[in-house]
Amino acid sequence: MFFLRFLSAILAGLFAIGLQGCAHQSQSPSLSGPLSLEKQGSFFVGGRNVKSDTLATLPQYASSGTIAIDQMYVRYQVPTDANKRPITLIHGCCLTGKTWETTPDGRMGWDEYFLRAGHPVYVIDQAWRGRSAGNVSVINSTQLGKTPATQLPPVFSASQESAWAIFRFGPEYPKLFPGMRFPLDALPEFWKQMVPDWAQTFPPVLNPTVPALSELAIKLDGTVLMSHSQSGIYPFQVAALNTKGIAAIVSIEPGTCPSATGDLTPYLKMPILVLWGDYVDQSSRWSPRLKGCREFEAAVKRASGKVENIVLNDVGMPGASHMLMQDLHSHQIADWLLAWIARNQ
Amino acid sequence: MFFLRFLSAILAGLFAIGLQGCAHQSQSPSLSGPLSLEKQGSFFVGGRNVKSDTLATLPQYASSGTIAIDQMYVRYQVPTDANKRPITLIHGCCLTGKTWETTPDGRMGWDEYFLRAGHPVYVIDQAWRGRSAGNVSVINSTQLGKTPATQLPPVFSASQESAWAIFRFGPEYPKLFPGMRFPLDALPEFWKQMVPDWAQTFPPVLNPTVPALSELAIKLDGTVLMSHSQSGIYPFQVAALNTKGIAAIVSIEPGTCPSATGDLTPYLKMPILVLWGDYVDQSSRWSPRLKGCREFEAAVKRASGKVENIVLNDVGMPGASHMLMQDLHSHQIADWLLAWIARNQ
Repeated sequence: MFFLRFLSAILAGLFAIGLQGCAHQSQSPSLSGPLSLEKQGSFFVGGRNVKSDTLATLPQYASSGTIAIDQMYVRYQVPTDANKRPITLIHGCCLTGKTWETTPDGRMGWDEYFLRAGHPVYVIDQAWRGRSAGNVSVINSTQLGKTPATQLPPVFSASQESAWAIFRFGPEYPKLFPGMRFPLDALPEFWKQMVPDWAQTFPPVLNPTVPALSELAIKLDGTVLMSHSQSGIYPFQVAALNTKGIAAIVSIEPGTCPSATGDLTPYLKMPILVLWGDYVDQSSRWSPRLKGCREFEAAVKRASGKVENIVLNDVGMPGASHMLMQDLHSHQIADWLLAWIARNQ
Repeated sequence: MFFLRFLSAILAGLFAIGLQGCAHQSQSPSLSGPLSLEKQGSFFVGGRNVKSDTLATLPQYASSGTIAIDQMYVRYQVPTDANKRPITLIHGCCLTGKTWETTPDGRMGWDEYFLRAGHPVYVIDQAWRGRSAGNVSVINSTQLGKTPATQLPPVFSASQESAWAIFRFGPEYPKLFPGMRFPLDALPEFWKQMVPDWAQTFPPVLNPTVPALSELAIKLDGTVLMSHSQSGIYPFQVAALNTKGIAAIVSIEPGTCPSATGDLTPYLKMPILVLWGDYVDQSSRWSPRLKGCREFEAAVKRASGKVENIVLNDVGMPGASHMLMQDLHSHQIADWLLAWIARNQ
């Protein structure tokens, strides 16, 4: 009997240590049961009016007048027990806010997962994409012979074949990386998330999404800006505009980090996480980006800033693709992120 | 004492009659307090893969490959106490699903209002708009000189000045109809809802949103299809494809009703409401449309179908613009609609 009690005590102790060792699991929100919202809704931030004479080419519609462009659509939800920082979710190239919603294979998206963990959640559509309008009247102008075809804006639709390697499902289409955990059975649903991308129309001018994000952050009076891929640089650009309202930066596999030799002052004022999935070193596209972000990390640390690059393999979560918020272990990754945010507030 | 009891009985009786007379008010959901959801999420319906050699013109991206187009984005919410038919909300020209969300002046949109009344709610973005991708690679093809500029697809951006009369804020920009109840102080926020519209690219082919709506209705096994303006005809086109899954049709100010002299069989199988705001008789654009819908109503009634055109003025709600789901009395109109749906299930 004593032996049994002794064994039981040891097992209980081991169990408690095990729980501590997996601290991030204590952040897991409940996935089932009703979701209780204090409020939800949508609105626009930013935007400006422009005039055009080629808004339409069809006889039943007026061709001249004013339209609003450059605004950023925002959908938000606040849980009834909100006791944590708002998280602002910023999608990447050729995608929309859908990125963060229900995964292609029908599991809960990070938008609701973070909500159930007590965070208000703000999901945006970048300017000129999704529900955020752009000015494409130059197409009509070209059709009418008023503008040379060479001046048409480039629009980028990512092919499924080329996106395959960019999203690191494998080294090239249709090969797979061993152990890669994107839900491949749901690929047809995933490809439907992709939309034409006018982002290349903006550089070298700042994408209007960036000042809109700054306005949103100031309005929220402290939000975690969580960006992905093409938008990875946005939170840094927001900080360079104004650090006000930025509680933390989480940049997931950014297309680029700020230069290690530039002005680092804005990045010393908030905790920064740059997060990476698997197979980066096997990708000629991604490995230089991680290298650049490590140089940025070193420079910011020398200036006493708080920044870290984390590769998910190094914290026990291998197999992550570039679309890691939709991978089969997306909730496990979200738990880790929730713990990071909790530690850094 | 007897007199007091007598008076009390009479007052109680009058009160009861008053409640009956305002039957629609009993449908009003609570606007405050937590919102409890059983589930929410988003997915796509429909869509197909196409190939193109002009997906990109920039050297860093592949120009050839496959993209998915024609799919319809759907966001849904189901309340914990859902005891009523799902309502599918279908936006009109130059707009997206945002139409049904928070009003420009920040009041609750019909998406949540119907939800709080016990209906699951499905909000779509039409194919080629918002979060539903289209194929615009012909723009690159033209830029590269492979396609003549005259073959560029027409794209329609509605100017604020021309939309003014179409939305019946007044007879012409910037005049106002007397008593018109759109929240004019919030016009800048409203104009930001408008997006470029490729819908004219499809006719005379059926817009891919229509078969996608049919697929959704069948999946939901009985939904109220609620359309608006340019999409006003869609529920009828869905019924013509297949009446399965359509519990009722609510067409709000449709661009057109089905022809009174066509095959009416599909429209005899469900209750149909065509709803109109104010000032229709003062609009050369809208008055013929109401006339056409009245002819459709008469023809369907002769065939023993159940259809009605209702002008909101005739049920005590004057001042409605074309954007009546956002008018200052939008919740009162929603109450009336909820009562109509309850009566017709």
